[in-house]
Amino acid sequence: MVLSIFPIVAGLLALGFAGFLASWIMKQPKGNKEMQEIALAIQQGSAAYLKRQYGVVSMFAIVIAAIIYFAIGAETAFGFVLGAFLSALAGYVGMNISVRSNLRTAEAARKGMDHALKVAFRGGAVTGLIVAALGLIGVAGFYMLFGDVRLTIGFAFGASLVSLFARVGGGIYTKAADVGADLVGKIEKGIPEDDPRNPAVIADNVGDNVGDCAGMGADLFETYAVTAIAAMLLGVLLFGGGAYVMYPLMIGAVALVASMVATFFVTLGKNKNIMGALYKGLFAASIMSAALFYWITADMGLGMNLFYASLVGLVITIVINISTDYWTSTKHGPVFSIAKASETGPGTNIITGLAVGLKSTWVPVILVSAGILAAYHFAGLYGISIAGMAMLSLTGIIVAIDSYGPITDNAGGIAEMANLPKKVRNITDALDAVGNTTKAVTKGFAICSAALAALALFASFTQEVQLAMATNGSAESFTLLISDPLVLVGLFIGGMIPFVFSAYCMSAVGKAAFAVVKEVRRQFKKMPGIMKWKVKPQYGKCVDIVTAAAQKELVVPGLIAVVSPVAVGLLLGPKALGGMLLGSIVTGFMLAIQMTTSGAAWDNAKKYIEKGNFGGKGSDAHKAAVVGDTVGDPSKDTAGPALNPLIKVLNVISILFVTLIVTYSLV
Amino acid sequence: MVLSIFPIVAGLLALGFAGFLASWIMKQPKGNKEMQEIALAIQQGSAAYLKRQYGVVSMFAIVIAAIIYFAIGAETAFGFVLGAFLSALAGYVGMNISVRSNLRTAEAARKGMDHALKVAFRGGAVTGLIVAALGLIGVAGFYMLFGDVRLTIGFAFGASLVSLFARVGGGIYTKAADVGADLVGKIEKGIPEDDPRNPAVIADNVGDNVGDCAGMGADLFETYAVTAIAAMLLGVLLFGGGAYVMYPLMIGAVALVASMVATFFVTLGKNKNIMGALYKGLFAASIMSAALFYWITADMGLGMNLFYASLVGLVITIVINISTDYWTSTKHGPVFSIAKASETGPGTNIITGLAVGLKSTWVPVILVSAGILAAYHFAGLYGISIAGMAMLSLTGIIVAIDSYGPITDNAGGIAEMANLPKKVRNITDALDAVGNTTKAVTKGFAICSAALAALALFASFTQEVQLAMATNGSAESFTLLISDPLVLVGLFIGGMIPFVFSAYCMSAVGKAAFAVVKEVRRQFKKMPGIMKWKVKPQYGKCVDIVTAAAQKELVVPGLIAVVSPVAVGLLLGPKALGGMLLGSIVTGFMLAIQMTTSGAAWDNAKKYIEKGNFGGKGSDAHKAAVVGDTVGDPSKDTAGPALNPLIKVLNVISILFVTLIVTYSLV
Repeated sequence: MVLSIFPIVAGLLALGFAGFLASWIMKQPKGNKEMQEIALAIQQGSAAYLKRQYGVVSMFAIVIAAIIYFAIGAETAFGFVLGAFLSALAGYVGMNISVRSNLRTAEAARKGMDHALKVAFRGGAVTGLIVAALGLIGVAGFYMLFGDVRLTIGFAFGASLVSLFARVGGGIYTKAADVGADLVGKIEKGIPEDDPRNPAVIADNVGDNVGDCAGMGADLFETYAVTAIAAMLLGVLLFGGGAYVMYPLMIGAVALVASMVATFFVTLGKNKNIMGALYKGLFAASIMSAALFYWITADMGLGMNLFYASLVGLVITIVINISTDYWTSTKHGPVFSIAKASETGPGTNIITGLAVGLKSTWVPVILVSAGILAAYHFAGLYGISIAGMAMLSLTGIIVAIDSYGPITDNAGGIAEMANLPKKVRNITDALDAVGNTTKAVTKGFAICSAALAALALFASFTQEVQLAMATNGSAESFTLLISDPLVLVGLFIGGMIPFVFSAYCMSAVGKAAFAVVKEVRRQFKKMPGIMKWKVKPQYGKCVDIVTAAAQKELVVPGLIAVVSPVAVGLLLGPKALGGMLLGSIVTGFMLAIQMTTSGAAWDNAKKYIEKGNFGGKGSDAHKAAVVGDTVGDPSKDTAGPALNPLIKVLNVISILFVTLIVTYSLV
Repeated sequence: MVLSIFPIVAGLLALGFAGFLASWIMKQPKGNKEMQEIALAIQQGSAAYLKRQYGVVSMFAIVIAAIIYFAIGAETAFGFVLGAFLSALAGYVGMNISVRSNLRTAEAARKGMDHALKVAFRGGAVTGLIVAALGLIGVAGFYMLFGDVRLTIGFAFGASLVSLFARVGGGIYTKAADVGADLVGKIEKGIPEDDPRNPAVIADNVGDNVGDCAGMGADLFETYAVTAIAAMLLGVLLFGGGAYVMYPLMIGAVALVASMVATFFVTLGKNKNIMGALYKGLFAASIMSAALFYWITADMGLGMNLFYASLVGLVITIVINISTDYWTSTKHGPVFSIAKASETGPGTNIITGLAVGLKSTWVPVILVSAGILAAYHFAGLYGISIAGMAMLSLTGIIVAIDSYGPITDNAGGIAEMANLPKKVRNITDALDAVGNTTKAVTKGFAICSAALAALALFASFTQEVQLAMATNGSAESFTLLISDPLVLVGLFIGGMIPFVFSAYCMSAVGKAAFAVVKEVRRQFKKMPGIMKWKVKPQYGKCVDIVTAAAQKELVVPGLIAVVSPVAVGLLLGPKALGGMLLGSIVTGFMLAIQMTTSGAAWDNAKKYIEKGNFGGKGSDAHKAAVVGDTVGDPSKDTAGPALNPLIKVLNVISILFVTLIVTYSLV
């Protein structure tokens, strides 16, 4: 019989293990003085960014916490603050370990690929384990403290809000810096990526950390917490609580233990297959988790149908990995078709890339649909939330595999800037190439799990509306018929929100990148010595410009997410709001897949050409592919990933303010 | 008391008037021998295209007609064939009058703008009136012949199928030719548009006719017929028929008369404002129609609430005109932002254009949502279909305003190729610029009306399922709850279909354009005399290549549209099918708006730069804007418009096979 304290224990164990890995990393050699200087500039830039970002988020959060305090209650407000704090902490810790692993990975690459992979992957594992552990400890601890699942909704909202801002702000920052650096450096000046003469090069490296590490960390912390909370809430609403509340936490706990053990499986075999090494870790975690799911389900006496529902989540995780790999890897047709289309110029490159993304929606949709039907078949709405929780329970290992990417990316940048021998760069490049695929795969995972989490939240929302109506003395049953014009209108409005939201994210990158381009051009013009290696560019100026631009641009998308459910709920009532939530899940899911797939495929089409195909580097086809990559950047790293927290924030806010909406709505 | 024969009379009147206008056009001077030769080449290319297209459609249609004959009945099969024939006829006639008006417009432009506008607009008016008249006569005649509204669903399906193929095939053709011609001609060789040295120039001009004239004609014929049928069907299903069946036809009849009269209002004032002249026609038609709607509603004794519902449709039409104009005209912020972003290269141009399209979804969504709620408030589901019918009743004048665009576009091409004086080209250019805006505006109109038509069909579908279940002896009531996992899964699958469908449309253009580029490059290489004006290029070769490519590429999207409702219905049952239909309407609507707005805005951003802004023609900003225009072409002229028939085809097929699905579905 497992004890209910077990999730907390597992979480603490994972934190301890992460601490052990972190101290191991800190003991690794840091390389020469030049490398350390560069790494310090990246560290300082990242820290400065995060400080400013959290400043903006705090202002939002204080206002919202006050509203919650007065409108709902002190415990919920406390939960909100705690969720926001832990989400921010997950991002902060992940970023800090990344900016310390990068130069150590560069130094380790001098000794060979095995060693570099070890440092980079352990850096990623620290982030992964901390994200999952904080999620588990936070939700389980808060629940045990107050003993009421409903109060954890405040926690979920805090986590979602920070994650939304981290994704949007970090996404704008990283891509504005990247696009800005490339446009002038690569295209206008013809200097390579990560060339120290480019004034935006440090900003670009900072971006990898604040977007890919802090952003992904906060996002998956949030998805983890929100999925657990949605499942627990359904456990209460549908079954009256008991073991059904603890079960999602137990799934998270045993899979976290499995993920820790699985990190030891990530070793290069004789064939030096990097992807294979990472996949060994994922498969080991999946198999151990499946066995442990069986054990706890039996131990808690919950019936094997729940175990089958949890397996559905594991199967989705594995299939989505394979599918994303197909659409975005250089080995298959889609990327090849984009590379080929580059021969006829940037126009056909873009058209083909858009088509690949649009077409790629079918696999995740069929997969998630089959998953929904299967999980529902086994255990109803609760089964869907358990499938989601089983997916998310692998967060530790998935984020480890993902976060290793930006670490090697940064390591390559440091190697380039510090003029390390070519073989070092070759090793980091090989690791980075695999990192690009794992990044795309993690995004596929994040989107599918976000869709399931949002559906579980949506199911909770409908239950909560029913409860609130009953509390208000209404005997009516709350039904969402799609032929009801209010529901229909809600579906249209909800379907539109992800379109408008991602429009703001995309144009924010355009605007911020424009500012970077102007600044880089100015520096090249004012200081001609830069191109001749005689003058050092003013890196800090670029970092400042992007930081300020990102903060300014995240306000409108943030407001769209926070205001629209309350506005629709109050003006058009809970039925329209229900339609809106589902509409946003449907189009948010599609757009997120389209944007991240197109982006990754454009990126890899460019890499494929750079390997010497279709004319290779410097050819017209390559120039066309660079344009595609530029368009793909804000799609795959800003708008696309930001849709995940968006669809959850909309649902969480609706649940949080359900009583208010049911009581005061005009319809 | 109006007689029930009135719709037929009004339709015949409009046909007679169109015949009168056509004979007037044929009497206009045709210009010199060179112009006639060019026009003949365009005519022959267009005819050859349409012949081949209708050949492919016929094969599809014969198979489907046979299936309908055996599975449903002879009358429905006859309706299907008739609907398909009339839709094809609408496209055929429209195209034939266009390819005869173009050179006469070019010749008329020698005498001044007034005269050129008169010829071009009357050419458009012939198409517009014939489209509306055939729709009205077809639906009313078929209904009167058999006296059973349900049989007209076969008619609707025939019309939808041809319209889908006309849109997809014509859209692929026109844009592959356009993109292919531009890529080599403008970008590689630096020769202007419509330069007779470009081997793809005739194919490009043919494309304007088969895409913009035949495609738009068939599409709006279909929307017109389908909207009327959906409204009539709801009149039977909800009110048991009677005056409620005739009312939609009467709305169409009186507005057709109003449209005829309104054509006389299209005259240039002293200020030579072309847009103003066209808008005078639209406003005159709207005001007269509103008055006539009041009269027939009162005369038929149906209560003023239906009149209010019809006004909702007219208001949507006018607001969508203004809104589309804002997002796509060179006078406003969105296009300016794209033009400005072109300064930093094609990457930022594309990002900004995508963002503009994504953002522009909000106005039509709010507008259609408000329209749905208002129309439902006045007259329930039937009210929504009446609002749709009121919109469509203006088809005559709207298509007239739209079709004049490709005529002037062609006239400009002929003027260029036949070396007419510069002032002629200036006049056709001025007319063409306005034509670009009216084309975008008509697309906004077509999308909003398609959404309303599809919603009316969807409402009929739910009613038909209920009837079929009752016929099968089931006492269950058919409800589509969005929390039902089957409905949920249906929504996801339906939401995905427009994404995958438009992916095929987009990549078809890429593939076909690639074939054109290769051919044009081959001709330039093999015959160097072309560039020196010494050798005539082989225009016919390019026409053939695009024609064949377009036919090949339309098969997959066609199959997606026809097969998916039947497959989902049989495998997952009517509930999932209901979810699927609505999911496809939501995302199809959004994507269509995004794609057509982005496309038109890119096009006009390029034109704005060509006027001398941001460096003008030949600058780097201009080159970047040309890339945006290239990407916009298949978005706004292939994938975007093809989504309109798609969402209706899905619904019509579902209604047609409802008994089969309810009886044999696995769930």
